[in-house]
Order: sequence, then C-alpha cells, then structure tokens
Amino acid sequence: MKRNLLLTPGPTQIPPQICEVLGRPIIHHRTPQFQTILKEAAEGLKYVFQTQNDVFILTSSGTGAMESAVCNLLSSGDKAVCVEAGKFGERWTELCKAYGIKAEVLKIPSGKAVKDTQIRELLEKDKDIKVVFTTLTETSTGVDTNIKAIAEVIKKTNAVLVVDAISGLGATELKTDEWGVDVVVSGSQKGLMLPPGLAFISVSKKAFALVEQSKCPKYYFDLKKAKKACDQTDTPFTPAIGIIIALNESLKLIKQMGLEKLIAHHARLAKANRAAAKALGLKLFADESCISNAVTAICVPDGIEGEKLAKVMRDTHGITMAGGQSELKGKIIRIAQMGCVDEYDILTGISCLEKVLKEMGYKFELGAGVAAAQKLLNS
Amino acid sequence: MKRNLLLTPGPTQIPPQICEVLGRPIIHHRTPQFQTILKEAAEGLKYVFQTQNDVFILTSSGTGAMESAVCNLLSSGDKAVCVEAGKFGERWTELCKAYGIKAEVLKIPSGKAVKDTQIRELLEKDKDIKVVFTTLTETSTGVDTNIKAIAEVIKKTNAVLVVDAISGLGATELKTDEWGVDVVVSGSQKGLMLPPGLAFISVSKKAFALVEQSKCPKYYFDLKKAKKACDQTDTPFTPAIGIIIALNESLKLIKQMGLEKLIAHHARLAKANRAAAKALGLKLFADESCISNAVTAICVPDGIEGEKLAKVMRDTHGITMAGGQSELKGKIIRIAQMGCVDEYDILTGISCLEKVLKEMGYKFELGAGVAAAQKLLNS
Repeated sequence: MKRNLLLTPGPTQIPPQICEVLGRPIIHHRTPQFQTILKEAAEGLKYVFQTQNDVFILTSSGTGAMESAVCNLLSSGDKAVCVEAGKFGERWTELCKAYGIKAEVLKIPSGKAVKDTQIRELLEKDKDIKVVFTTLTETSTGVDTNIKAIAEVIKKTNAVLVVDAISGLGATELKTDEWGVDVVVSGSQKGLMLPPGLAFISVSKKAFALVEQSKCPKYYFDLKKAKKACDQTDTPFTPAIGIIIALNESLKLIKQMGLEKLIAHHARLAKANRAAAKALGLKLFADESCISNAVTAICVPDGIEGEKLAKVMRDTHGITMAGGQSELKGKIIRIAQMGCVDEYDILTGISCLEKVLKEMGYKFELGAGVAAAQKLLNS
Repeated sequence: MKRNLLLTPGPTQIPPQICEVLGRPIIHHRTPQFQTILKEAAEGLKYVFQTQNDVFILTSSGTGAMESAVCNLLSSGDKAVCVEAGKFGERWTELCKAYGIKAEVLKIPSGKAVKDTQIRELLEKDKDIKVVFTTLTETSTGVDTNIKAIAEVIKKTNAVLVVDAISGLGATELKTDEWGVDVVVSGSQKGLMLPPGLAFISVSKKAFALVEQSKCPKYYFDLKKAKKACDQTDTPFTPAIGIIIALNESLKLIKQMGLEKLIAHHARLAKANRAAAKALGLKLFADESCISNAVTAICVPDGIEGEKLAKVMRDTHGITMAGGQSELKGKIIRIAQMGCVDEYDILTGISCLEKVLKEMGYKFELGAGVAAAQKLLNS
C-alpha cells in the first residue's frame, strides 16, 4: 500500500500513458513503421532542444553523450575549459583526462554558478582553448548556470560551447539556437519523463567542424556515424526501440502543453519548495542568484542526520528525495521538481519531509511548510 | 487485426509477462530495492553465460560491449586476430581500426565458419597476438562457430579469446568456463527476450590482466569502473533501470526452463526450419557443418526478388523475417528461431513464406514446407 513517489533528480516519474507504451510488444527497428516514429521523435527533440541542429539519439546514459562530446570535438593534447560547480561538472574534467585533453578547470564554490566574466578571462588569456564544457543544472548543488550570458561570450570566439543539460532540459530555460549554444547533451530519465537508457546530443555547424578534425579513437559514440544514420532516418546501431517509441509520446505530451508553459510550471513548483523550506526555518543550499528550477537543495538542520532523513522518507513512507553526494553527504536533501510532477506531489513531498523532521526532533510548527507552499501555488 | 510476429535475429519477441514488467512505474536505482534486483540479475547472467566471472551490465547496444572489449583489452599498436565470417565479424575489425590496433583479419568464405587450425597457425606464427575476436552466431550468414575447438587452441597460449555472443547466447551452446572462453559479449534483444538497450560482458582473470595494461582512452565503457561498481552491487552510471528489472524476470524464466532445455528447444526449431526449406526445394545458405541454431539463412530461389519477399511478408501479413545484408541483399531470407518463439510461430512463419513464394510465382507443392516442419516437430 506504500506510495512510490520519486522526487529525485533522475529518474523522474513516468506518466501512466508512457508506462503503457513501454509495456507494448516490440516492433523491429528497420521498418517503415519505426522510421516514422524516429522521424517524429527527431522533430520533437528539436522542439525541446530549441534548435534546428540535428539531435542525435544514443542508447546510453547521459554520460555516454558527454563522452561523445569530448571524444568527437577534441584530440589528445587539445585544450578545453571545464566548469566544475559540482559533481557533474567534475565529470567533464574526468572525461577530458581520459582522452588526454588539457583541461583548464574552473572550480566554482559549492552552491554558486560560474560567471560569464570568468569564462571570458580564460578565453582571452588562451586563444587555443577549443571547447568550454558547462552544466545547465548542477543537480548535486541545486544550481542553474546562466548559459545565455556564457554563450554571448563564447560565440564571439573560435571556441565551442558544450552544455550538459541532462537534468535541466525541459525544466529550465535553454534557447539553444537563439543563445548560440553549440552542443547540448541530455538524457531520457529527467525532464523527458522516460526511463533511463537514451541520451541525446545536438551539434551546431561550428561544432561539427571540430568533429571533422577530431582524432580521438571512437566507434559507438562516433558522431559522424550518428550523422550518416540520422540523415537516413536511422540509427547506426540497434537503438533502445521501446524507449524511443515512448520518447515520441512524451515529446507529444510536452508539445501539447508547450515548452514555455512547462518550464513555468517547474519554476512555480520550485518556488513552492523554496517557500516551504524557508517557512520550516531551513536554509537553501544554492545561492539565490543561481537557484535551480529543476531541483531544490535544502540544508539539513544541525542535529538532524541527513542520510537517515532521506532513508526514512523512502523506506517508511515511499517518498524518495535525494540526499547529498560526496562532501555534501548527509548535509543536504534534494527535491527535484522536474518531469511528471504536479503541485500535489510537491505538497505530498513537503508533508512527508515535515513528518520525518518532526519525528527526528527538529523544532518547527507542523504544517508551516505545506501552508507556505500552498499559498505560493494558489497565488 | 494484423499479426506482429518477429522472426528476426534481434529484436526478438518479448514474452507478455516481460512486457507487463516493462510497463510498471519506475523505481530509483540507488535503493536497496533495486540493488536486490541487480544482485539477482547478476547471478542469473552468470547462469546463462555459464561462468563464475563477473558479467558487467552496460546500457548500450551490443556494439557498446564489443567496443568495451576492444578498448579495455588492448592498446594502440597491439596485435589482434579478427575472424570475419560475415557482417558482425567485420565489426571487430572496424573497432580495432578505430583504436589503432593491428588486426590480422581471417576472412572466411560466406556461409562457412573459421577452423581452429586456422587460429592455431596464426598464433604460432605470431606470438605477439594478444586477442582473438570471434563471433558465436554470425547472423548475417546463419553460421555458428565452433568456439569449443577454438578455445582449446587459445587457452594454451598467452592470447585471450573474445566471443561476440550477442545473437547466440541462450540459443546455441556456449560453455564459457568449461571451454575456457575469456570474454563473452552479449545483448538484451536476442536470446534474452528483452528490448534492446542493455549489453553484457563477462571477463576472465586472464583477460582482466590485459585490462590492467590497456592504454586506450575510455570512460563510459571502462571495465575497471564497471568492476568497481559491480563489486558494490551498483553500476557506474545510471543504468536502463526498466530493462534491468525485466532482465531479472527473463532470467528467471530461462532458469525455470533450464538452459540446456532452452538450447535444445531452439535446435529443434532450427531443424524444423531447415526441413521446411528443403521440402520447398530451397537451399540453405550456411554450410551444413556450421549451420546455426539461432538463425536459419535460406537462399531465395532464382527469379524471386528477395527484398520484395521479406517486404510483403512483413507489410501485408505482419510476419517479419530478415533479408540479406550488404552483398547478400535480396539473396537470402533469415528466420530467427531465438528468444520467445515456439513451434507454432515457426509453422506460422513457414506458412507465410509459402504463401508469398506462391504469389510471387515460385513453383512448389503448397503445404510441403509446413508438413515437413510438423513431421520434424512431432517426431
């Protein structure tokens, strides 16, 4: 009888009508029937990515698409900037290291976002930097990056801007073409409300010129193979057929609602979570200037064990939020408001957080969090 | 009202009870609940792989696991043997080329299999060969390789044997540990009766010593990362959660039936397909000595357009078999008898083949194919 509510930054909840699609008998991928779906999905992805560039579909986790960006844009010995504002930014650095790419690491204090001026400075100092790797939503700290401002700087240079939008896509603003973002990477199990298994990567012409020069070894993640197949409405290798069919349906749901409305919806839920946290006397982890639309990181109050808090909510009440990772373990609790989540899910989450905080001895007025969220959601 | 019967060598049909599992709401992967499933699945994979080695789960198509074998066992400049008995053998050569590995290509005539003596000769001639890449079931030609004999040769040397069992696993014999096979690669959408999206790789101690030395760049497919996560009943990156849960169920089905019985079942269906082909006066493409248990390649008779034959069966009757690839396009038709397929599916397939062959003007006694298959299946 226990609820299974995921308020985690991936996987997110899957709408019931998408679950139904995932449970259908399989079809073969080299058929006109599947090609029609693939074509529709490719168009739908362009809509959500807000781009006219090709969006290639990879069968992998989001990290596969990140690796694809690194090993297709660069060669061993090339220079790149990696913005590290948290755990997912660090992945760019690790990937560069794996391929012998000289990464200039821009380490940002936890809970803050990189500034466009920091990127400008680095690019002015070293004209050999070919790529700047960034993160739209750093879910480990609950921070959104100002990609618009960074793109403004980078588009005037020869460098290429790569954005890990695995978590942010569909939950926070990202105007790929309008802002001039070259490469956007995403995954299926976040804003797109699907199971994990697919990753996506959109590539601008400016970026594809780098792809042509890259000498890193690659095969499965080779974007030239992806492009060749994509031009024929195909995939280079057997794709995760079931998830692509479900993707096409989820993209239709997003289009029906409209991307702007969807992002506004997530922003509203984010504000409700923040209002609740404040009403409970809890601090938000991220700096207000860069606080995320996709995930809210809340500081665990002194005297409360953060890991136990998350564990009890999940194991006793069936409501899953994420704890902190690495040095933030036990120190924050993260409520994702992305994917298929509505205001009642958010209120449910907050009421569970209140219940367990109360049980664990934290002093506050029971109901204050839910009431604050309700007020915001009804304003 | 049209049937959707897949008699293709991947994807194969998914049992209804597995479809139901795929349609369930998602759970989070960093939970004790998922860990229990992952642990069971890991054990189940060892049973099907017939090994005590770790079997790592990758979220990718089978090609991802092939790439993983290449870039984890070798370094640029190393020597390897690639057995090319068809399209999938060629993939090993392409992968080696991508990573700067010197591939000695053993080109085998189409429809035939490599002989252990050919491998022995190469290994005796060049002691620097580190890895031999082979294919258990070459679905492009309907051939099974005698891996047992090859393993017998290789285990006496310093070289490591890698088997692409993407198609053969669960459909034809492969005794990994008993025969001394070092690395076995497979995928979800074949004998395991799942949607595509997962790949698997088992690695022996002898092979893992090469992994420790390998200098190829890698990240997502890094087997050291996979091993570290596997030791903690985890995956290094967000896995295709839904397909892993379904995998656990399909492995239970296989264990219930018993692997030996399952392979005997596929062998029986293969014999039925062959008997039908012969009764229809059609030639089998593969040499009798190496004909596959997993897929039957039948030569399209003179005067019949092979591509049209497959297309009409699929588009008019909803019964999908595979045509030939590359230089075999239009020349063969391939009926897979792997995955969730029973004798009635096979009879349905043959009756449809008869129907369309008759319509296309091929001369034969209608019913002869089905009758021959029935006789075999009832003997």
